[in-house]
Amino acid sequence: MSSPLEAERRKSRVSSRELAYVLHQSKSHVEKLERLEQLLVQDPVFNHEKMYYLTRGEQYKRATQMAGKAEIIAHRNNLSEEDTALLHVILQGFTGCPSSTALHTGMFFKNLGLLFTNKQQAKWMQMAKQWRMVGCYAQTELGHGSNVRGLETIATYIPATDEFEIHSPTLTSMKWWPGALARTANFGVVYARLLLGGKDYGVHNFMVQLRDLESHDAIPGVTLGDIGPKIGFNNVDNGYCKFNRVRIPRLNMGMKFAAVTREGKYMKNSDVPQEVLYFTMLQTRMSYIRSSGLALAKASTITIRYSGVRQQGYDANNPDSKEELRVLDYQTQQYRLFPLLAAAYAITLTGNQVDAYSLQLADQIKQGDPSMLVVGHAMSCGLKVLTSEIACNGIETCRRACGGHGFLVSSGLPVLLGDILQMVTAEGENFVLCQQTARALLKIHGQYQASGRLPSAMQFIANIGKPSRAQPRSKQQWLTLDTYVDVFQQRFLHSLRGLVDKVASEPSIAAGIQNNSMHCYKLSNAYTFLVLVSNFAESVHAASAETQPVLQLLCKLFALTQLEATAGEFMESGCVFPNEMPIIRDNIEDLLKLIRPHAVTLVDGFNFSDHTLNSTLGRYDGNVYEALYESAQHDPLNHSSDKVALHELLRPIRDEIASKSRL
Amino acid sequence: MSSPLEAERRKSRVSSRELAYVLHQSKSHVEKLERLEQLLVQDPVFNHEKMYYLTRGEQYKRATQMAGKAEIIAHRNNLSEEDTALLHVILQGFTGCPSSTALHTGMFFKNLGLLFTNKQQAKWMQMAKQWRMVGCYAQTELGHGSNVRGLETIATYIPATDEFEIHSPTLTSMKWWPGALARTANFGVVYARLLLGGKDYGVHNFMVQLRDLESHDAIPGVTLGDIGPKIGFNNVDNGYCKFNRVRIPRLNMGMKFAAVTREGKYMKNSDVPQEVLYFTMLQTRMSYIRSSGLALAKASTITIRYSGVRQQGYDANNPDSKEELRVLDYQTQQYRLFPLLAAAYAITLTGNQVDAYSLQLADQIKQGDPSMLVVGHAMSCGLKVLTSEIACNGIETCRRACGGHGFLVSSGLPVLLGDILQMVTAEGENFVLCQQTARALLKIHGQYQASGRLPSAMQFIANIGKPSRAQPRSKQQWLTLDTYVDVFQQRFLHSLRGLVDKVASEPSIAAGIQNNSMHCYKLSNAYTFLVLVSNFAESVHAASAETQPVLQLLCKLFALTQLEATAGEFMESGCVFPNEMPIIRDNIEDLLKLIRPHAVTLVDGFNFSDHTLNSTLGRYDGNVYEALYESAQHDPLNHSSDKVALHELLRPIRDEIASKSRL
Repeated sequence: MSSPLEAERRKSRVSSRELAYVLHQSKSHVEKLERLEQLLVQDPVFNHEKMYYLTRGEQYKRATQMAGKAEIIAHRNNLSEEDTALLHVILQGFTGCPSSTALHTGMFFKNLGLLFTNKQQAKWMQMAKQWRMVGCYAQTELGHGSNVRGLETIATYIPATDEFEIHSPTLTSMKWWPGALARTANFGVVYARLLLGGKDYGVHNFMVQLRDLESHDAIPGVTLGDIGPKIGFNNVDNGYCKFNRVRIPRLNMGMKFAAVTREGKYMKNSDVPQEVLYFTMLQTRMSYIRSSGLALAKASTITIRYSGVRQQGYDANNPDSKEELRVLDYQTQQYRLFPLLAAAYAITLTGNQVDAYSLQLADQIKQGDPSMLVVGHAMSCGLKVLTSEIACNGIETCRRACGGHGFLVSSGLPVLLGDILQMVTAEGENFVLCQQTARALLKIHGQYQASGRLPSAMQFIANIGKPSRAQPRSKQQWLTLDTYVDVFQQRFLHSLRGLVDKVASEPSIAAGIQNNSMHCYKLSNAYTFLVLVSNFAESVHAASAETQPVLQLLCKLFALTQLEATAGEFMESGCVFPNEMPIIRDNIEDLLKLIRPHAVTLVDGFNFSDHTLNSTLGRYDGNVYEALYESAQHDPLNHSSDKVALHELLRPIRDEIASKSRL
Repeated sequence: MSSPLEAERRKSRVSSRELAYVLHQSKSHVEKLERLEQLLVQDPVFNHEKMYYLTRGEQYKRATQMAGKAEIIAHRNNLSEEDTALLHVILQGFTGCPSSTALHTGMFFKNLGLLFTNKQQAKWMQMAKQWRMVGCYAQTELGHGSNVRGLETIATYIPATDEFEIHSPTLTSMKWWPGALARTANFGVVYARLLLGGKDYGVHNFMVQLRDLESHDAIPGVTLGDIGPKIGFNNVDNGYCKFNRVRIPRLNMGMKFAAVTREGKYMKNSDVPQEVLYFTMLQTRMSYIRSSGLALAKASTITIRYSGVRQQGYDANNPDSKEELRVLDYQTQQYRLFPLLAAAYAITLTGNQVDAYSLQLADQIKQGDPSMLVVGHAMSCGLKVLTSEIACNGIETCRRACGGHGFLVSSGLPVLLGDILQMVTAEGENFVLCQQTARALLKIHGQYQASGRLPSAMQFIANIGKPSRAQPRSKQQWLTLDTYVDVFQQRFLHSLRGLVDKVASEPSIAAGIQNNSMHCYKLSNAYTFLVLVSNFAESVHAASAETQPVLQLLCKLFALTQLEATAGEFMESGCVFPNEMPIIRDNIEDLLKLIRPHAVTLVDGFNFSDHTLNSTLGRYDGNVYEALYESAQHDPLNHSSDKVALHELLRPIRDEIASKSRL
C-alpha cells in the first residue's frame, strides 16, 4: 500500500521543485543550499534527533560542538564568507535557533565594524576571526530594555591612568539577557553611560574583556552567570554580568561617532552620518521578514503533511463509508491551515523582495543619499511587526491543529514556536515599534501636504483626500487583484486620515502618538497588509507559468481571509459593505476546495529536508506513528528503573493509613 | 521609599478583600481556602521555588512527593472529601498542573463509579481509597484521538477460561497519552473493542492490571513507557502501553451499561439511562470554565503587577519629566491587559454560576428529568471552547506584555500557559466541539419551530424571525447593559438563521454541520459571548454595593472590546452601524482611564498567594528585580564550572586554523 502522502502528491500536477525555485529565488540557489546542507549532515555531530531529550546544559554543549564543527567545515572547504553565513543559517534551521557563536560572527562583528574606528577594528578583527576573541553585545540590563537612554551601567574616565572604570552601580544595572554572555564570550561590547569629570554624556559603547583568553576564567571584578530557563533559545547562554569597578584602556571606547581625548575631552565625530546607525537596525528588522515566513512555512509543512496522514471521524456526506476521513478533508482544518500556508508564501516572497530592497538601500546610503530611509523605516517596522505576529500566532494555530500530538516536543512544533516567539519582542517590541511606523507615515504625509511630493512607493497616499467610490461588487469581482489592492488601500487611508486628525489636536506629534498608540498599532498593520497583498500579487505575476495558477489561488485566499478577519475596519472605512460578506465567504470556501489537492505539493515547495524539520509528524514519507514511538525511546525516563511512585507515594500513604488504623 | 505597588494600591478605595468574596463566592469560602493553603505551606516539601530548575524526571518525583504528602495531611487532619478535593486544587495551583495522583482520585474514581456495577465497585473502591490500587484512564491510542469508534485495542472473550484477552494488534493501537500510565498507575480502565465469537460489539471498558501491587513491576505482556517531553504537564507521567495478549477475568469488564455472560452472550442493560454518561462529560467540561478564568486571572495578576513596577520611556505629555513612566500608564499596555482582566472576571463569575447550574442539573437528572440536558450541552460546549481560547490566547498576550522577562520560566507565565494549553484540545477539541454547540442549538430551534416552545434560558430565540430594529445609538447609550445584550443577541440570531438556512439545503443535519463547520464555530462563539455578557452583567448586579461600580466598568469594557474585535459580524447582522465605531472606541478609551487606578486592586481581588503565583514578576511586594536575580541562582548551570565553550569551540577551531596555517 502506498503512503497517504504519495497519494496526496499525485493529486497535483504542479511541480514542487518549480515552487522551490520561486520561493528560493532560483534553481542554482536551491542547489547550493542543498549542497551546503550535505556538507553538514555527513558529520555525525549534526545528527540531532536526540536534541529534544537533552537538558538545557546538554543542549548548549551540543549546539556549541555543532557550531564549532560548522566553522571547521567552512574552513576546510574554503567556503566564501557568504557561503559560510549560509552554512550557519542552515545549521540554525536544524537546531531551531542560532548558536551563541552566531552572535559572535553576526552581531559582534557587525558592531565592531559599526561603532569602532578602522584603527580599533584592525586591532581586534583579526583576533575575532581567529576565535581568540569571542564577543557578545551587552546592552540590556535587568531593569532596562528597549529604552537605551535609561541604562545605568557607568563608564567613568580616570585621567590618572588613561582608563575607563566600568561599574554596575545598582542591582537593576546588571547586564541581563545578552546571548553568549553566560558561558561563551570572552569580550563584550558594553553599553554604558560615559562620565567625564562628573558630567554624564549619555550612553556609549566600550570593548570590555570578560574572561581570560587562555583559561576562560572571568576577569577579576566581572561576575557572570546564566539567567535561567526561558522560552526558546535553549542553545544560547543568555547571561548576566555585574561589573565591580573594572578598568579598561581609554582606547577601548567605540570611537567612530564620538571620542574621548587623553585629557578627558569629549569630541563628537560629525563626519559619520547617523543614518548608518539607523540603517543597521533597519537591516536587522528587514532580515526578520523572510525568517518569519520560513518559520511559518515549517509549521505549515509539518501540520499539512500530518493532516494528510491523520484519520479521524466519518464522512457525513458518505454515510456508508467505513473508512475514517483524513483531517485535511475537513473544512475547519482547511480554514485554519490554508490561509497560513498562503501567508507563509506571502511573507517569504515579500521577504525576497525586501532583501533585494535592503541591498539597494545600502547602495543609496553609500552614495550619500538617505532619502529612501523614511520609506524603508516605515516598511521595515511595519513588516517586522505584522509578519512576526502572523508567524507566531500561525505556528500556534498549526500546533493546535495537530491535536494531542502537537503537544509533543518531538513534533518539532513547540521548539519551533519557542525559538520564533522572540521576534515579536526583540528588535523593537511590536507595540512600541508600530509607533515608529506611524511616525514615519505621518512624516511622509506631512511632507506631501507641504510639497505635494510623495516617494514612489507611497504614491497612493495622494488618494487620501478622495472619498471612497466603492460600489458593491459581484462574486467574480471579489476575485480580482485590483479589488483587493483598492480595499486594502482604502482601509489604510481611512486609518491614516484618522490619525492625522487626532494628532493635529495634540500638543506635539510625540504626544499625539503616545496618546493614540492603539490607533498607531492598527495603522501600522493596515499599511503593512497593503504592502503584503501588493507584493504577493507582484511576485505571483513574476512567477513561472507553471506555478502561477496555484500561486494566484493562494494570493486570493490570503487577501480575502485577512479582509474577513478585520472586516469591521474595512466597513468602517466605507470600502466594503456589510452585505458583501456572504459573497466573500463563498469565495473563500471555493478557494479552500481548489487549493485542497495541491496542499501537500505546496508545502513540499519550501523544500525543507527531514533533517531540518526534525519532526515526527512532518516527515516526508508520512510514517508519523513509527516516528513518534521511536522518538520516545530516546527519553532518559525510559531508561531508568527507579520506582518513584512506589517509594514516594504508595508506601508512605499506605504506611500512614496502616499506622492510623492500628491506633 | 514605599514600593510602587503600594502607591498603586492607595489609588483605589475599593477593598480587594470585598472583591475576593465576590469572586470566591463568600467570606467563609475565602477563609477556608486560606486555611487549607496554610496546612500545605507549613511543610517544606511544598517549598517549590526551585521547581523551574528541575529536569522533567525530577519534577515528576517532586510532584509525586507533594501529592503523597497532601494526601497524608488530609488524612491526619481528618478533612472531609470535599475539603480534601479543595486541598488538591490548591496544590494544583502551586505546581500549575494536576499530579498523576489527581487522575486517580479524580478521573479513575469517577469512571469506577460510572462504568462498573455496585458489586464491581465494592471490590475495587476500598483498594483504590487505600492506595493499594492506583488507576489511570486509558482511552486514546497512538493513532486515535477523540473518535472513540476508531479505537483498535481488542478484548476477545475466551470462554474456555472465562477471561478476556486484551491485545494491541497494531502500532497505532498502542495506548498513548494517558496520564499516570508511564510510571504511577498499577491498574487502568482500558477502552477496547469487545469481540465475542468473532463479532465486534464496539468499544467497552475493562479493568486491567498493569503492574504488580507490591513490586510495581509491569505485568507480563504489558509494555509501559513515557511518551516524551511535551508542552505543560511536566508533573504528569503521560505514558504508552502495549498489550501482548494479556488475560483478565471476565468480571473485569465494566458491566453497568452492558454485560457478557459466562456463555459469552452480550446483554445491554437498558435500565441505566445513557444521559448519565453524557452528563459526566458535560460536568467535566463545565469544570473547565472557572479553571480557565482563574488561569487568566493569574496571568493578569503577574502582568499588571509587573507593569505597575516596570518603568520604560518618557512621558511625551510632560517633556520636562526625567522619570520614566510605568508601563501600566501606556494606552497600548492598558488596551492589551484590561480587557483580559475584565475577561478573567467575566469567566470566573460565569464559572461560579455554571458550577451552581451543574449541581442543579445533577439533581434534575437524579429525579429522572433530562429535559435541561440539551441547554446544558450547548452551554457547556460553547463555554468550554470560548473560555479556553480566551484564557490561552490571553495568557500569551500577558506574557508578551511583560517584554523580555516574560520569556523567563521564573516569571511563572511559560509554565502557566503550558499547563492550560491542553484546555483547547482536551475534552473535545474546540473546532470539533463547536459542532456540538451548533447541533444542540439547531435542535432547540427545530423544537421551537415544531412546538413553539423554548427552554427558559433560550427564550431569546423567539426573536429569530423579527427584523433588527437597530438605530444608531449615542455615546451614553453605548454604555448601557441593554444595548450590549441586544447587539450580542442580534449577532447570534443572525448567525443561527444563516446556519438553519444552509443546513436546510443539505442531505442531512450531520452533512450540513460537517460542510459548514466554520459557520458552526462562529455560531458557537456568538452564542457563548451572549451567555458571558449576560451572566457577567447578572453577577455584577448581585455583587456588593462597594464593588459594583468598578465591576460595572469591567463589564462594559468586556462587552465593548469583544464587540470591537469582531465588529464586522455585528455590522453584517445589521445591529451595529459602521459609523458607530468611533463612539464605541471613545467609550473604550474612557473606560481604560477609569479602570487604571483600580488595576492593581482588581488583580489583588483574586487573592492568589505568592506561593500560588510562584512568579518573580508577580510578587505582591513588587520586588521583581531582586526575585529575578535570586531565582537565577537556582540554575544548575550557575553551579557548574565546566568550560564548554573553551573545550568544544575555541580550542578545536584555533587548532584547525593553526594546523592549516602550518601547511
